[in-house]
This record gives sequence, structure tokens and C-alpha cells, in this order.
Amino acid sequence: MKLKYKGKTKDVYEREDGNYVLQFKDDVTGEDGVFDPGANTVGLSMEGAGKAGLRLTTFFFEKLQEKNIPTHYIDANMDKQTMTVKPASVFGEGLEVICRYRAVGSFLRRYGKYAEEGQPLDGFIEMTLKDDERGDPPISKEALVMLRILTEKEYDTLKQLTKQISDIVKEELLKKNIELYDIKLEFGRSSDGDIILIDEISGGNMRAYKNGEPVQPLELERLVLEA
Amino acid sequence: MKLKYKGKTKDVYEREDGNYVLQFKDDVTGEDGVFDPGANTVGLSMEGAGKAGLRLTTFFFEKLQEKNIPTHYIDANMDKQTMTVKPASVFGEGLEVICRYRAVGSFLRRYGKYAEEGQPLDGFIEMTLKDDERGDPPISKEALVMLRILTEKEYDTLKQLTKQISDIVKEELLKKNIELYDIKLEFGRSSDGDIILIDEISGGNMRAYKNGEPVQPLELERLVLEA
Repeated sequence: MKLKYKGKTKDVYEREDGNYVLQFKDDVTGEDGVFDPGANTVGLSMEGAGKAGLRLTTFFFEKLQEKNIPTHYIDANMDKQTMTVKPASVFGEGLEVICRYRAVGSFLRRYGKYAEEGQPLDGFIEMTLKDDERGDPPISKEALVMLRILTEKEYDTLKQLTKQISDIVKEELLKKNIELYDIKLEFGRSSDGDIILIDEISGGNMRAYKNGEPVQPLELERLVLEA
Repeated sequence: MKLKYKGKTKDVYEREDGNYVLQFKDDVTGEDGVFDPGANTVGLSMEGAGKAGLRLTTFFFEKLQEKNIPTHYIDANMDKQTMTVKPASVFGEGLEVICRYRAVGSFLRRYGKYAEEGQPLDGFIEMTLKDDERGDPPISKEALVMLRILTEKEYDTLKQLTKQISDIVKEELLKKNIELYDIKLEFGRSSDGDIILIDEISGGNMRAYKNGEPVQPLELERLVLEA
């Protein structure tokens, strides 16, 4: 296997059969030791975070598979902390799609003049460019199309898939009395040209609250997967 | 007349007949003595800037009037450096509509991973909230509608009016071999509920270039209005 990319929370290897292997690490994004799914830096390392992320991702990706929502997931190996996935090319140099159920994080930092902290947003969707240097700027449909990062049709598909997937995650969390505040997804084009969900769905890319308190990534895995 | 608002480049007075008077000042936006129409601070004061801004605004607003494009303009008094305008309420707490013909300024700071400096943008339109504290964040149609700042129909009207007005300004500048790079407009709802152009159209709210060099606000007035 050939190392293709060292990410903040995962390393990516290419297999000889053309598929890829994601190695989940114990690092989570944040700043100064505080977890923040919207941050661009590794904020802290937590023993077991990689395994927890992989277990939760596997749980959600298998659930999406049952509902015929296309993802890059093939299988997972818990001992090695790896997930095997289909190849996919990202949009532009990487695009994140955020679904927001409550006004927190960068949404509030931008639009706090018009929104109260924690105000319900009913699954509001926005997209941001993956660009550490420029602070992951938000980008509109018009700009995405104009800069040829997405077609109009792809934008609409991403929006619809994101809402559908996020609602499924929200519902799963609700079964454990956890409320989903926001979640960040990534998509790619498969070799067949289909749009598929890539990356992960774990405590590392969402904000979840229980009894008004934020649920940390490791705790989320425990609460969601406990019998 | 009652002072209603002290702005960065203009003061606003309310007249007894319900109309408003804009007092043009010699201040222009920028930083450290360098003019920047996208800046949120007064960067420098230039003798004659107020009069030049008023003359250019009057020139363009009268041109728009001829073409039946609705503005708040009633008349101007060059000696007093004032413009009398119809009352209008702004969208939210203020919204700016930018029409971009070349990639410079905040567009490039956000999307520089996908655009070259100075790349043609063909009249690309985006909106930003007037919010000094939050650095005038860009905002999408979806967010504007969701936050009830605009209706979908109002968004489309603003976009169409902005393109139409900006193209007229671009064409006027071209007659003097000046190229319009970008321009920032403001709109309001009139007492009849119509959407009208408000504020000003001057060197202070656009980037204009001649022979590859930026044209300063005062110089722009001289070049455009000279016989």
C-alpha cells in the first residue's frame, strides 16, 4: 500500500486493486486542547478517538447503505483502525457541505447580527471550500458554478443528499436523547461519475448536545453504539 | 433638518417634508492612507473628495433616471455638497450588492485558490452584510431568505438591477478608456414598496483602472466628467 496523503485526522493509502484505505488517527480538530469540528488545526489527541471515529463511521455508513444512499464505504477493520473505500475525486480541491440545525460556530460568527446563539435553523445547508490558508471560506451556488467547482445540478444533488443524510444522523442521535446541532459532510465523484458520500461520519465532524452540554467525540460513540 | 446618522463618508439629515439630505464628506474608505472601496474604515481624507463624489453620483443617478431605473435621487446642491433623496428602508441592517468584472479585493482573498488576480468575472454578483464587527460577511441567497433579510423575489430583483446598473457604469467609464473592475451598490425599499438604488455611485464605491493602474476617486470624477 502506498501512502497518498497525510490528513489531520486520517492518513490515506492506495491499494493495488485501486481502492483506498483510510487509517483513522487519535487526533481531532480543535484549538488549544478544545474540540471544534469546524477548526482547521489538530487541537488535541485522545486515546481511542481513531477507533471511536471508525466505529461510528461504520455504523452510519452501513445504515446509509441500507437506505441506498451511495457512499465510498467497502468495509472496515477495527483492529487495524482502517476503512477500505472506493476511489472518488473531490470537487475542486475539496468542498465541505454543512447542515445546520442550530446557529452555532462559523454561522454565528458570520451572521450573529441576525441570529441568536442556538437558534433552530431547520437543516440549513451551506458549503465551504477546504482551504486552510483562507480559513475555509463559505461559497454560494453562483460562485461554485462560476468557478467551475460544481455544476448547478451537482449543487442541487449535494444539497438534497446532505439533507437526507443529516436527517438520518439526527434521527439516530435522537434515539439516545442527543441533539445534532450541525454536521459537515464531504462528497466525491465515483469512477462511474456518481456523487457519493466520502470521508467519515463521526463525533469529529459534528456538534452534538445532550441535556444542553456538548458531547465529546469519544463519548458520542459510546452513547450512540451502547445497547 | 435633523441629523439622523453620521456615516464614514456621508452624514444623513431628515428634512421636515420627509425626504433626506446626504452631506458628502471629504473622507474615503481605506486603510493607512490607501484608498480601498471594500474597506470598513476611513483610510484618508482628501480635499474635494466629497464634491467629486457628489458630482459623479449626480451624473450617474441622472443617467439611470433617463433609463427609468428607480433611485432615491431627487436633486443635488454642489455648493452645499448635499443631495436630497427620497426616504427608503434598507434590507436588514444594511446589505451591499457587489458586481465584479475582475477578480480582486475580497473575492480574491476568499477564492484565490480558484481564481487568478485580475481574471475576468463577467459581472459576477454577490452580496455582503454591512457589519463592521464581523468584517462584512458574504451571504448566499439561501441564507438571506432564511434569515428573512430578503425574499427570493427581492434577491432576484436586486441581482438583475445590479447587473443593469453596473453595466451602465462600466459602459460610461469605457468611453474614457477606464475599465471597471468592481462596484458596490446599495438598495432600499421606497415608501411605495419599490426597490430603489440608494447611497451613491462614485469613485468611493468602485475599483476603476486605466492603462493597468488604479484610478483614484478624485481622478475618476475628473476623467469621467471632463468634456
